[in-house]
Amino acid sequence: MRDALAGVALNARLSRQLAFCLEADKVKQVFRQNPVTDGSRKENDAEHMWHLALMAVVLSEYSVEPVDLSRVIAMVVVHDLVEIDAGDAFVYDRKAREAAAVLELAAAERIFSILPPDQATWVRDLWDDFEAKATPEARFAGALDRLQPMLMNASADGGGWVEHGIGADRVLATNSVIGHGSPALW
Amino acid sequence: MRDALAGVALNARLSRQLAFCLEADKVKQVFRQNPVTDGSRKENDAEHMWHLALMAVVLSEYSVEPVDLSRVIAMVVVHDLVEIDAGDAFVYDRKAREAAAVLELAAAERIFSILPPDQATWVRDLWDDFEAKATPEARFAGALDRLQPMLMNASADGGGWVEHGIGADRVLATNSVIGHGSPALW
Repeated sequence: MRDALAGVALNARLSRQLAFCLEADKVKQVFRQNPVTDGSRKENDAEHMWHLALMAVVLSEYSVEPVDLSRVIAMVVVHDLVEIDAGDAFVYDRKAREAAAVLELAAAERIFSILPPDQATWVRDLWDDFEAKATPEARFAGALDRLQPMLMNASADGGGWVEHGIGADRVLATNSVIGHGSPALW
Repeated sequence: MRDALAGVALNARLSRQLAFCLEADKVKQVFRQNPVTDGSRKENDAEHMWHLALMAVVLSEYSVEPVDLSRVIAMVVVHDLVEIDAGDAFVYDRKAREAAAVLELAAAERIFSILPPDQATWVRDLWDDFEAKATPEARFAGALDRLQPMLMNASADGGGWVEHGIGADRVLATNSVIGHGSPALW
């Protein structure tokens, strides 16, 4: 990826920032289990993260606690970058998710450290917060992260649920965390 | 799109907000002239808008004027929704861009008015501002909107520039507006 920037005289900080933005581009090739709404194909992580950012803008009034919207959006636009290395683990596959957790930690180390150290620390903090759901922003971002694929699957006649034989009881149990960030949306 | 929400008892406001989020999903099928960085396929508008949001988070220090980051991000995640109806007009094709401008106005009317009136007005204001480049936020968002495809094309051995025979002089002339939002990035 850095080849694109070869021969361009950039200071070290900007060079690292652009290299990160180019590395992040790979997430457009990480496909998820849920389809886009017309059911024609699977959605990728870049599309998913854009959709969460849009939903954060439109739906922030439903957060159960007041949130800093710019932090919610920063969180949702980086939260799946680790899947460049770790891949997408289906939310209903517990074994795959446990295996992915180890890979995701290594991915966070590698990918975020492309950034200048101050930004690497800040983005890592955003991602740790999203994973731990320790703040109102993380709980609301987590609610959107579960709500968006539900909307996609429901729009595409069941989508990934039907394909993988996931019943309504498991859909409801797995996604009940939406209520932690937003009872109104749940 | 509203079928997905049929039978769910929602208040009118939330119903309109979710209908807008589902309508917006169609932008994942609007493909642009620039490729993703590995050159394997064209990028779509949802991926492009996500990438701009990520770049806004990482590169906001380079705006020539101080910006409200949450407004920049809100602007970039909605700015290409009008292309659901109007399609993507190649930035180097002036005729196509003039024809698209009329379609985009009608699209803004149709798509943004799916939202509750207060949010429809707010999103329309964001889009008008982005088009007019009337504020520091719009100028910085506009700079990112030109910088991102340059990075994509440069990474993919010229990408859309080579495919359409766009020389370096036209690339530099067309994208010099980046300097209006960020001389440092230009």
